[in-house]
Amino acid sequence: MLGALLLNANFKIHFSLISCQARVPLPVKPAPLRMPSPHYPHWASLQADIEAHLKQTIPLKEPLEVFEPMLHLAFSAPRTTVPALCLAACELVGGHRQQAMAAASALLLNLANAHAHEHLTDGPMYGPNIELLTGDGIVPFGFELLARPDGPASASPERVLRVMIEISRAVGSVGLQDAQYVKKTLWDGGEEVQNVESMQRFVLEKRDGGLHACGAASGAILGGGSEDQIERLRNFGFHVGMMRGMLQMGFMEKHVQEERHLALKELQFFMDRDVHVISSFIY
Amino acid sequence: MLGALLLNANFKIHFSLISCQARVPLPVKPAPLRMPSPHYPHWASLQADIEAHLKQTIPLKEPLEVFEPMLHLAFSAPRTTVPALCLAACELVGGHRQQAMAAASALLLNLANAHAHEHLTDGPMYGPNIELLTGDGIVPFGFELLARPDGPASASPERVLRVMIEISRAVGSVGLQDAQYVKKTLWDGGEEVQNVESMQRFVLEKRDGGLHACGAASGAILGGGSEDQIERLRNFGFHVGMMRGMLQMGFMEKHVQEERHLALKELQFFMDRDVHVISSFIY
Repeated sequence: MLGALLLNANFKIHFSLISCQARVPLPVKPAPLRMPSPHYPHWASLQADIEAHLKQTIPLKEPLEVFEPMLHLAFSAPRTTVPALCLAACELVGGHRQQAMAAASALLLNLANAHAHEHLTDGPMYGPNIELLTGDGIVPFGFELLARPDGPASASPERVLRVMIEISRAVGSVGLQDAQYVKKTLWDGGEEVQNVESMQRFVLEKRDGGLHACGAASGAILGGGSEDQIERLRNFGFHVGMMRGMLQMGFMEKHVQEERHLALKELQFFMDRDVHVISSFIY
Repeated sequence: MLGALLLNANFKIHFSLISCQARVPLPVKPAPLRMPSPHYPHWASLQADIEAHLKQTIPLKEPLEVFEPMLHLAFSAPRTTVPALCLAACELVGGHRQQAMAAASALLLNLANAHAHEHLTDGPMYGPNIELLTGDGIVPFGFELLARPDGPASASPERVLRVMIEISRAVGSVGLQDAQYVKKTLWDGGEEVQNVESMQRFVLEKRDGGLHACGAASGAILGGGSEDQIERLRNFGFHVGMMRGMLQMGFMEKHVQEERHLALKELQFFMDRDVHVISSFIY
């Protein structure tokens, strides 16, 4: 299987890439996802599971003025493959996807919040103040999903705590937040930018690479993976993120291929397993 | 001791109330706290401990553009008694204040973030974008402090997870966020407000009452308190918060006294303990 994948590494991307930056229209109620079909990418089916879980979990109750924007915020941000990769990694190490569902949801909520704050001036639906406050609630709520006794914490509190640290670092000052700052410097052009490509690479590493690495490692941790498996999946996630980010940012094809090959190399560690689903993240 | 406190319930407040709303000047580097003196209120000494802990914990490293605003944000928000009450409750049930330090810090960071977002137009020091992004990092970082293996999680992961749920609810959609929404409705006057006092009371209950209840309950949980002790301290915290909020909002003295008496009643449960420090929160 893996050999065939390596041979196919130059094939075209089979599914449309919903980017971190292309903004989807914002329905008040989340649009239903397309139903799975033979051509439906695996990650989108995992994403549908996460969204169904979140719809059940976020209480739509009074005051609707507080809860509806929260639901809206969670679903209006452009989809990324980070949460789905979390579930796929969990399954790859032998876990059940439900074990990683709270972590995938927490990742989705953190990313939705970061997106909302970065695009606050794009014309929010509920007014910037409400979107701001909604975001303030959504991040702790993501951690709450992980901490709840009906979540993965009942089985393995230590692993849940470890995943919380992973998520905090990936979205915080040493991760996404650092990337956002550098991206701003690049775009504002306020400071002299010596080497645009190296700064772009830095943004990719911290944002797309770092977030996918976190998603994959978190899934592996919650699925009961060994330290070796966790680190391999972290590296795999990193290269998946780099590859996808490069495609978005229009990097040369040779750079994209390089990341794809590095990702596939990490998957060789799982030769004895079914890598069908997880390998769909690089095609 | 408690009898004397009850008798003294009408005495004046002994220390200046640093309100949730009065904005302190914003130094780039946090101003040193005054040294404890005989007239120094107990809660301010607890607060000084929390701030010293945070200064050690928030890494001031490159890129300074990301880390300095985080440190600034943490210390520029007006001080509230919520984090200090968390430490006091922990000690009252027999714990060491260090056991509740991460929770107190997480509370301080969550409140600093909420304050920054609510006052984003007051003329932030680093530009609204940086303050926004900083806030996004600061909330997960608060949860990270609780989750870290060198924090309270090593001794009692289950209690730490429980505290995370407490904090998420107190600052989220069913707590502070709800209060912020109602406060906005009151202030904007966009909708017809039938009963201003009952809405003000709602804001107090969700914001000041709810946050202090969370602080006290969290401290009691981490200090190893029994369920009874946790609930008594939660109620105590609620009335402390109500009392302090009413003082700020200019409620009539009889209402303030009512809350003070209710708080003292809860303390009667701890008659066999030294309530010297915790009772300072209501004087």
